[in-house]
Amino acid sequence: MKIEIINIGDELLIGQVVNTNASWMAEQLNLSGFRVYQYSVISDSREHILQGLAEAEKRAEVILISGGIGPTRDDITKHTLCEYFNTRMVFNQEAYQDLEGLFARRGYKVTELNRQQAELPENCTGIPNKLGTARGMWFEKERPEGGKTIFVSMPGVPFEMKTMMTDFIIPKLKQIFRTPFIHHKTVLTQGVGESFLAAIIEPWEDRLPANIKLAYLPQPGIVRLRLSGEGFDEQILHQQVEAAVEKLQGLIGEYIFGFDNDSLEMIIGRLLSEKNATLATAESCTGGAIAQMLTSVTGSSAYFKGSVVAYANDIKKNILGVGSDSLEKYGAVSKEVVTEMVIALKAKFNVDYAIATSGIAGPDGGSAEKPVGTTWIAIATPDEVVATQYLFGDSRDRNIRRTALQALNLLRKKIIL
Amino acid sequence: MKIEIINIGDELLIGQVVNTNASWMAEQLNLSGFRVYQYSVISDSREHILQGLAEAEKRAEVILISGGIGPTRDDITKHTLCEYFNTRMVFNQEAYQDLEGLFARRGYKVTELNRQQAELPENCTGIPNKLGTARGMWFEKERPEGGKTIFVSMPGVPFEMKTMMTDFIIPKLKQIFRTPFIHHKTVLTQGVGESFLAAIIEPWEDRLPANIKLAYLPQPGIVRLRLSGEGFDEQILHQQVEAAVEKLQGLIGEYIFGFDNDSLEMIIGRLLSEKNATLATAESCTGGAIAQMLTSVTGSSAYFKGSVVAYANDIKKNILGVGSDSLEKYGAVSKEVVTEMVIALKAKFNVDYAIATSGIAGPDGGSAEKPVGTTWIAIATPDEVVATQYLFGDSRDRNIRRTALQALNLLRKKIIL
Repeated sequence: MKIEIINIGDELLIGQVVNTNASWMAEQLNLSGFRVYQYSVISDSREHILQGLAEAEKRAEVILISGGIGPTRDDITKHTLCEYFNTRMVFNQEAYQDLEGLFARRGYKVTELNRQQAELPENCTGIPNKLGTARGMWFEKERPEGGKTIFVSMPGVPFEMKTMMTDFIIPKLKQIFRTPFIHHKTVLTQGVGESFLAAIIEPWEDRLPANIKLAYLPQPGIVRLRLSGEGFDEQILHQQVEAAVEKLQGLIGEYIFGFDNDSLEMIIGRLLSEKNATLATAESCTGGAIAQMLTSVTGSSAYFKGSVVAYANDIKKNILGVGSDSLEKYGAVSKEVVTEMVIALKAKFNVDYAIATSGIAGPDGGSAEKPVGTTWIAIATPDEVVATQYLFGDSRDRNIRRTALQALNLLRKKIIL
Repeated sequence: MKIEIINIGDELLIGQVVNTNASWMAEQLNLSGFRVYQYSVISDSREHILQGLAEAEKRAEVILISGGIGPTRDDITKHTLCEYFNTRMVFNQEAYQDLEGLFARRGYKVTELNRQQAELPENCTGIPNKLGTARGMWFEKERPEGGKTIFVSMPGVPFEMKTMMTDFIIPKLKQIFRTPFIHHKTVLTQGVGESFLAAIIEPWEDRLPANIKLAYLPQPGIVRLRLSGEGFDEQILHQQVEAAVEKLQGLIGEYIFGFDNDSLEMIIGRLLSEKNATLATAESCTGGAIAQMLTSVTGSSAYFKGSVVAYANDIKKNILGVGSDSLEKYGAVSKEVVTEMVIALKAKFNVDYAIATSGIAGPDGGSAEKPVGTTWIAIATPDEVVATQYLFGDSRDRNIRRTALQALNLLRKKIIL
């Protein structure tokens, strides 16, 4: 059974509003075992709505429509639906009473414009709207080959739409259609490119059960691998997905840092809290980005003590205590300096773990010996200090982001050792 | 001329990813005088892509496609386009050289999967991708009734798509289609709410010429006011927009910090560079966010010396030298402590200007006397030290962001005094 979404609204087509309605609807439907085949965003125009409905009807059995049912003149969805179904408007007493009730609670008078909102196409069932003046509309249309196509129209105002979907539309669809269970698991990797991962896991992917699909979702510095399984036995499905993830861990375990909605900064927060341990950072090329990520986590003050952003060399010397000799002899972007930074910081801040970074974020400052992207990361633990060199790319923003993620993941691995 | 967007990706149809690509593309096209007629989101499936292309071709003259051209097996857009145009794949030497160059810079080896990325449908023109491995593809197909339909395929990775749109696709579309001149000017304000601004500027807005439109684009801590004028005489249009902006400055000048693509961190960089002056930050509640913003600017090492993120009180004492008395007597979130922080930092870092922040970002840590959102910001200049209290909201992320922006704008005002 295919579901389609049609979002109606000029504001979406000039990019003034991001279409979060479609993604929310798709997610909720997916979690209930329905599959959204397509969504289309069209304008508040009669011709366009008629065309959009006719096209969607050819592709899908259920068509969920949001937008264009408010009281103002540019809201033409209801009249266009009436035209599409070749029916007429009738005054709906129940809808009018709901409207009166809502207005009474808000202390408003019902206007003529609002009165017209109680008129609905004759062939639809009204859907109550607890939070607004526009009723939803549920239409069923016989298909020539048998069966029915369902059309549902709802408001574009997100909280009105969401309440209607949750309270009425999804439960009713579940009554009508028997849907399979859907189970998703997203595996989060860091420090490895998409194509490199693909080369390693290809044989595993080839042997995945037919009901489990894999998607690559790359972000700068992170590749997410999403497994989506579908089946009628919830327990078996769950076991299948978990078994596939376990095999994947055998292949690329060293790159995996978490699952689903985890982030490196949250995982580190959990690990440090469990150990009752503290952390600080000494940042040169990351310029505070690691501290900023760590402190974005609620409750981070329990384990994160602070940072020295040592952007200038005299701050590395005077505040952290890096030796002038090392800076002169090896340069700021060197194993020696990043190691001195992390050792000095750990002592000064009196913490259990420390991170230091020094690199050439770019676009300027590179040389033949140390091109843009050259980066040193040092990690200090209660037992050791380790420094590693990386060569990232030539985009400043991405170099900073990749360095921060790599540093957090190196720390994570040291903590769980 | 109608443009359509097709976004390809299963992740969009299960709601895991919000379709910000479509809204960004629609906005940029709109700003260039083009009209997006519809956008459709479809799955990574051969049949669906073929169907989506055929349907869009009936409705529009330009079809912009994003997604599904990465190196992995679920990326089938390129082969499906090849099938749609009934053509064959050919190896593209230029594409391969770009790929080799990108990989060499990153120190990676070209895999067989990546080699296949240098194969493109024979009838397309490749579009360079500075930031990734997948080339864009520009196709032109004769229409039976005359003229051509343009199809452009680009990556789904937002920053790759954006660069390709800005550098290549929009300029080329502007060459091909004669569009009216569009002149935009965005006025950037900080520290004032949208509805407060609206109340002040309503009479001005009512008197704007009919060819100039105003859009409010609010972000946490910043409200952007975008004026968009349309006309066939570029010079007159430019004068009209500038005259409107001048009047606006008379009304809300105290809130305006810049125009168009300015950011506070870039403006501060320019101001400090002009004065040959230096800056450092002492951050408690912002946790490094100000340093991170400042160092995101290319060349910031010329004026930004660094930061102490003093998240824990003992860092405020031991590293910055804030007195234990003040911390005990007034608490960390106080005029006294934030003033001591900024004075100590300015001396230790030997800078001309300094910023200090201390606040309760939330969601925990508030009290009746100092609720979540209570924030002190201190600014030190060569001549004075000023501390100001703010009460922001109850969202952690937004409190951090608003504090950082407010601090930078306070500093900006002090520098230009």
